[in-house]
Amino acid sequence: MKMSLRNQVTGTVKSVTKGEAMAAVKVEIAGGHVLTSSITRESAEDLQLREGSEVTVLVKSTDVALGVAD
Amino acid sequence: MKMSLRNQVTGTVKSVTKGEAMAAVKVEIAGGHVLTSSITRESAEDLQLREGSEVTVLVKSTDVALGVAD
Amino acid sequence: MKMSLRNQVTGTVKSVTKGEAMAAVKVEIAGGHVLTSSITRESAEDLQLREGSEVTVLVKSTDVALGVAD
Amino acid sequence: MKMSLRNQVTGTVKSVTKGEAMAAVKVEIAGGHVLTSSITRESAEDLQLREGSEVTVLVKSTDVALGVAD
Amino acid sequence: MKMSLRNQVTGTVKSVTKGEAMAAVKVEIAGGHVLTSSITRESAEDLQLREGSEVTVLVKSTDVALGVAD
Amino acid sequence: MKMSLRNQVTGTVKSVTKGEAMAAVKVEIAGGHVLTSSITRESAEDLQLREGSEVTVLVKSTDVALGVAD
Repeated sequence: MKMSLRNQVTGTVKSVTKGEAMAAVKVEIAGGHVLTSSITRESAEDLQLREGSEVTVLVKSTDVALGVAD
Repeated sequence: MKMSLRNQVTGTVKSVTKGEAMAAVKVEIAGGHVLTSSITRESAEDLQLREGSEVTVLVKSTDVALGVAD
Repeated sequence: MKMSLRNQVTGTVKSVTKGEAMAAVKVEIAGGHVLTSSITRESAEDLQLREGSEVTVLVKSTDVALGVAD
Repeated sequence: MKMSLRNQVTGTVKSVTKGEAMAAVKVEIAGGHVLTSSITRESAEDLQLREGSEVTVLVKSTDVALGVAD
Repeated sequence: MKMSLRNQVTGTVKSVTKGEAMAAVKVEIAGGHVLTSSITRESAEDLQLREGSEVTVLVKSTDVALGVAD
Repeated sequence: MKMSLRNQVTGTVKSVTKGEAMAAVKVEIAGGHVLTSSITRESAEDLQLREGSEVTVLVKSTDVALGVAD
């Protein structure tokens, strides 16, 4: 599927922390940055995410803010 | 300010496209990925964003989705 | 209240999964689609959501992405 | 790609309104509901969206709120 | 309608800037804070928003980040 | 850091409810409004949030919807 989601970056799962309803997933991307994704527990299990899983990080452009040094 | 926003990645502005209300900003981050941010026109002008501006990309974890290859 | 939220679709709650902080709610809408909503546990209890509850699904247009087949 | 985005509903584009930076796209889904998506103008053009295009509406669960009648 | 949206604050519209697809609306709330809302142009016209309009600002809890002084 | 996030309001933490993955934080702002923020548990601990913590509430303009009385 080709998506309007402008931001798609590949990475590797470093950890998955599951709660009852949600899960927090850490993903390392190029440059050594580690991103955090909060998804439903169901998604994490549905995608069988675990340390080492290869994933694509997906972020809509309207959810990306910017900052500049003072 | 230390922020709850888990995802903070530095990058360089590649382009700024301004509409009346909004602006679309392209930012290159490590690994050569180019991200897109949709912010208000006012923000883009307030932060004086232009090609070459050094920025920090800010994304809340709840706005980060994940995908795995079929 | 008339709202700027462009996307308002009625549906019926199929399940509510509660964590400490959040809850995942499944809602069936027309056409048999089952949507998932992640809200605070407090909201789920405040709205007394349970299987069979009639609800309106509310989504802001800036949170709606699109995909097309490759 | 299998995605954590829990909400994926097929539909048909009814209209595309383009601004400089953003575009508003109307999509009819099952049950006759017409949803609105705000994406970047670039995405709308990249996906070649026009009236009649078959699309998948994509919404993250954390972006879905709920309401109940008073 | 009773909503899961935890954050509902009343305010007065200070300005409306309309683009083709989107609109940026400034709203003054208690304490003199002026908030900015980016909605579709259609919403702004549908709600007949203009300077002086009384509105309720609506924000989902998952869209609220926090910062603390360094 | 100067940010594109248009909405920045100071407040005081009233409570922090932690789950495994997420945390719900109540913040009182001017005018006595109490806002709710859903962030990762890690963020809540990283920022050492507890009752009485002084914080800045951060919301992107694209996440702010509006309503008007019927």
